[in-house]
Amino acid sequence: MDVEAFYKISYGLYIVTSESNGRKCGQIANTVFQLTSKPVQIAVCLNKENDTHNAVKESGAFGVSVLELETPMEFIGRFGFRKSSEFEKFDGVEYKTGKTGVPLVTQHAVAVIEAKVVKECDVGTHTLFVGEAVDAEVLKDAEVLTYADYHLMKKGKTPRTATVYFESK
Amino acid sequence: MDVEAFYKISYGLYIVTSESNGRKCGQIANTVFQLTSKPVQIAVCLNKENDTHNAVKESGAFGVSVLELETPMEFIGRFGFRKSSEFEKFDGVEYKTGKTGVPLVTQHAVAVIEAKVVKECDVGTHTLFVGEAVDAEVLKDAEVLTYADYHLMKKGKTPRTATVYFESK
Repeated sequence: MDVEAFYKISYGLYIVTSESNGRKCGQIANTVFQLTSKPVQIAVCLNKENDTHNAVKESGAFGVSVLELETPMEFIGRFGFRKSSEFEKFDGVEYKTGKTGVPLVTQHAVAVIEAKVVKECDVGTHTLFVGEAVDAEVLKDAEVLTYADYHLMKKGKTPRTATVYFESK
Repeated sequence: MDVEAFYKISYGLYIVTSESNGRKCGQIANTVFQLTSKPVQIAVCLNKENDTHNAVKESGAFGVSVLELETPMEFIGRFGFRKSSEFEKFDGVEYKTGKTGVPLVTQHAVAVIEAKVVKECDVGTHTLFVGEAVDAEVLKDAEVLTYADYHLMKKGKTPRTATVYFESK
């Protein structure tokens, strides 16, 4: 099996956020996608080791910020390579609080989406959270950042906990 | 809720295939993504009205062909806007048979992936099939077709059964 084939699957790059016990959490994710239109449901796939995973599980809600192409690597690193329980990721970052109480990062975001979890699908190392959208807003007319851009243009790395992490890379 | 926000989510464009009761089925899909690396699992989200959905459910296996940027609209239309039960989609199309017996379309494909279903997640109008990859191969060094390319460059339409179909569009 040639794992290079899996690098041909396209993704965007997002910040998935939630809040639990008064702690705001957020992580970088590529596995975010719409499942249905009636009702509007979106899914996110999060590693069980991540604080954001546990916050989504406890709060039953999550936010998604669709990152713009121009998002600086430092901003991505802030949410992508640290633990929310060890670092105040939201300090100095522009965000707003959604209807469900989750934080929605608006900085470097082309759009924000908010959802309440209606189903969970345990897939081993990760949980696939299915959320019914409760709100969504386009924030700016800018190009979105794709996972391919992140790797090619920004030479971005893949954290060990990512859905698409392979030892060889 | 502004549905335009959901158009900011990035996808590739794929042909998802399967076979059941001797009939080969295939459909265009944008909702294909990797869920985990250990083991390698990928998910596809298919509309319950589609023949390919039923073939995947019955056979417990599916194939994914990652379409190249240069895929002609006619080829996309062949798999995207017809029913496998009413039209021989594979007639004259290059494909091979995978380990599980499903057809894998190799024409206009940058890579092919084959998986056996290990879990199903019913999300209403669609079913999310979680598959453990049994084989994967890169077929050519070419640019992949993204859903954004399909809409912007090729002025492609969205079928009513798509995960991202909204009445307004």
